[in-house]
Amino acid sequence: MGGERITPVILCGGAGTRLWPASRDELPKPFLPLVDGVSTFAGTIARVADPALFAPPIVIGNRGHGRLIAAALGEAGSDGAVLLEPLARDTAPAIAAAAAYAAREAPDGLLLVLAADHLIRDVAGFRATVARAAPAARVGRIVVFGIPPAAPVTGYGYIRPGAPLAGFDGVAEVAAFVEKPDAATAARYVAEGYFWNSGNFMLSAATALAEIDAFAPAIAAAARAAVEDAEAAGDGLLLAADAFARAPKVSIDYAVMEKTKRAAVVAARYDWSDLGAWSAIFEASAKDGAGNAAGGRTLLLDTRASYVASDGPLVATLGITDMAVVAANGAVLVAPLARASEVKRVAEAAAGHGRAVRAEWGSHETLLAEPGQRITRIAVAPKAHAAWRAASHAGLTVVAGTGTIAIGGAARPCEPGGVVAIAPEEFLTVENSGEGPLVLIAAATGPLGL
Amino acid sequence: MGGERITPVILCGGAGTRLWPASRDELPKPFLPLVDGVSTFAGTIARVADPALFAPPIVIGNRGHGRLIAAALGEAGSDGAVLLEPLARDTAPAIAAAAAYAAREAPDGLLLVLAADHLIRDVAGFRATVARAAPAARVGRIVVFGIPPAAPVTGYGYIRPGAPLAGFDGVAEVAAFVEKPDAATAARYVAEGYFWNSGNFMLSAATALAEIDAFAPAIAAAARAAVEDAEAAGDGLLLAADAFARAPKVSIDYAVMEKTKRAAVVAARYDWSDLGAWSAIFEASAKDGAGNAAGGRTLLLDTRASYVASDGPLVATLGITDMAVVAANGAVLVAPLARASEVKRVAEAAAGHGRAVRAEWGSHETLLAEPGQRITRIAVAPKAHAAWRAASHAGLTVVAGTGTIAIGGAARPCEPGGVVAIAPEEFLTVENSGEGPLVLIAAATGPLGL
Repeated sequence: MGGERITPVILCGGAGTRLWPASRDELPKPFLPLVDGVSTFAGTIARVADPALFAPPIVIGNRGHGRLIAAALGEAGSDGAVLLEPLARDTAPAIAAAAAYAAREAPDGLLLVLAADHLIRDVAGFRATVARAAPAARVGRIVVFGIPPAAPVTGYGYIRPGAPLAGFDGVAEVAAFVEKPDAATAARYVAEGYFWNSGNFMLSAATALAEIDAFAPAIAAAARAAVEDAEAAGDGLLLAADAFARAPKVSIDYAVMEKTKRAAVVAARYDWSDLGAWSAIFEASAKDGAGNAAGGRTLLLDTRASYVASDGPLVATLGITDMAVVAANGAVLVAPLARASEVKRVAEAAAGHGRAVRAEWGSHETLLAEPGQRITRIAVAPKAHAAWRAASHAGLTVVAGTGTIAIGGAARPCEPGGVVAIAPEEFLTVENSGEGPLVLIAAATGPLGL
Repeated sequence: MGGERITPVILCGGAGTRLWPASRDELPKPFLPLVDGVSTFAGTIARVADPALFAPPIVIGNRGHGRLIAAALGEAGSDGAVLLEPLARDTAPAIAAAAAYAAREAPDGLLLVLAADHLIRDVAGFRATVARAAPAARVGRIVVFGIPPAAPVTGYGYIRPGAPLAGFDGVAEVAAFVEKPDAATAARYVAEGYFWNSGNFMLSAATALAEIDAFAPAIAAAARAAVEDAEAAGDGLLLAADAFARAPKVSIDYAVMEKTKRAAVVAARYDWSDLGAWSAIFEASAKDGAGNAAGGRTLLLDTRASYVASDGPLVATLGITDMAVVAANGAVLVAPLARASEVKRVAEAAAGHGRAVRAEWGSHETLLAEPGQRITRIAVAPKAHAAWRAASHAGLTVVAGTGTIAIGGAARPCEPGGVVAIAPEEFLTVENSGEGPLVLIAAATGPLGL
């Protein structure tokens, strides 16, 4: 491939609302073992793990996911850097921060910007594409990985390729980035050789900063300051909140790609899925003889061409075809696979029905309610405290976080594994003194009284 | 209505396997609030509560359901008698025992034998039918309540009516009881004025004992002895197990109805459903504007003519029609309503997949498993003990039963509301000293080590 090693920049921001109920704020799409039993974030790390080609990655994600990111890097034996965003500002500020961070060590180094929530199994094809893109990136081009369309899908932005880039085999000018088309337009795009915009691309740190400086100077300044004033947090480097908050919330496509003259495109010659909906996950999954993909505790009778998954409950289907049935996080989705792209509507509507009941101090969620047994998960927000009078006998077990629990005024410290017994009428105060949520499981003989 | 009050005999034996996953051994069909938010058992008690017409009922059911039966009677303010079967022997022995019990007080008293798992909303029509049946029952007839068929259903036994019973308005001889027919035969039965056999009937205690003596003497003898030697249990009178076990396991239809010359039929002029499958429950339930019946935490988008119910998880449906989606007891069913009668297959198959993992000492079941949090329900059988080495920090809360918990040899008594903290590597023994299961909820930070 020639030249120095490439630094992968892995963007962990994808929420995956169309993958409700599996994806959620605390465990979003990149960290879910959606296909082949591994998360796409772990798959992305593995794809760029060859130290002959790649430097350790720079991972950028939400500060709330620092532990998940660090755990996956640790499991992969990667000593990548972790940049934690104090708040979400879309891709342009994230990439600007990563570029500013990388430029401190190697201003001319190549960055390979990758989404953490895409599935690519053909690692050889991926590396071959990276090898084709690198020379153009070294001379200042922004080389976007364009996916040859498998179908006239309306859900992606498209890239119209221009003239071949002389001297760079397999790389072409970008004639235009175009918005998500309607069905007829998508068909024309496919016929005319357009690519899907995968959102993955390669460029040098210097090019990144120069173009963001040119087209989005406020983002560049905010990102530089946020990196400059970043502080070590438990699981990575926490970008300075005041500075990062000044960056407008804008995507890299809008901030730079659609304006720059340096954009080029390389045809991605590998299998690719953004696992954007349950239908995509179904397509990417192994099938049984009836064409079903099933995971977890499932029981399929007279079921065909369906995706059935569970993270706990036994899910039984009888006499269905072309359906998605997903039980996860204490919720269940039932929809035809053909309508999987509309699941975002469900996620939005479900937010109102929230599994967890929000309170001023955090939230609580009933995991099981039946005569004589009620299990509740209680999450107290950092620096907050909850107080209530017990209505039943209950045991509280701390499963995450640190703080104090006081019963009738007598306080004791608590940490994971600690338990407390409470009796009816006792007055309880739970205080979170830590940085993350303080999570308690209450197993009660009746209503808790919360 | 004339004459003495009628004693209802309520049979609580129905398991309702086609109502999987809602029905289960511990909480079977008669006790589930399936329609209108009340159980059919409670509805049956209420239907025969008028003290001007009815004596307190005799309820007969499984000994494991004594508490449920007593609670429902108590809630209704009924001082009915409860006969508890030490083992299930089908309807003939149950009715024989109830008749023997009733005959001790009033050998000529009328018994109204009712299933506890049927839905009847038209109480006036029900009472009018009872009033038509009573005179014939008083002169020694067994008057079966025949349901005028709403459709040529193949799932019921049918009754072919014979000549009108002279002097008894609305009552006819039974020409024949016929087995569940095929579709063509069912259509002919409906055209020819047959009735569905509801399994409900009226007769005197003396007639019941005489006919069972005549056609099933072993049942009569066993039932009499079981009542004779019955012992007071917590929630009722426990039939003597040795005696009751000698009764062959036979239905009253097979043991008596198909053989007796005394059978008569009265047309039941009221709404009736045996709630035999989710489709029947859907039909009996109130519908929204899109023709859906929904209960519990549900979210229906573009959903039509479907039954959606949940006892806890948020169940979201998108773009489905004519479906049953039921989340209950930690399991989920998805099937077209048209195939609801096949759900028995699911229940049978699910038994193999058992939600709970059976162990020598009882069972355990994972209620929630995600990174850093694992909730397990542990049920230790009466007089049994479980022992294991803890693999994570965990809190154990007792939610039912009594016994002792020993950690590293130091034992302490436990009862509902008690909690114990366990740390990795600690050795744990849980011993059940009570009569019922000892149920613990373990909230752990990782695998329990069970």
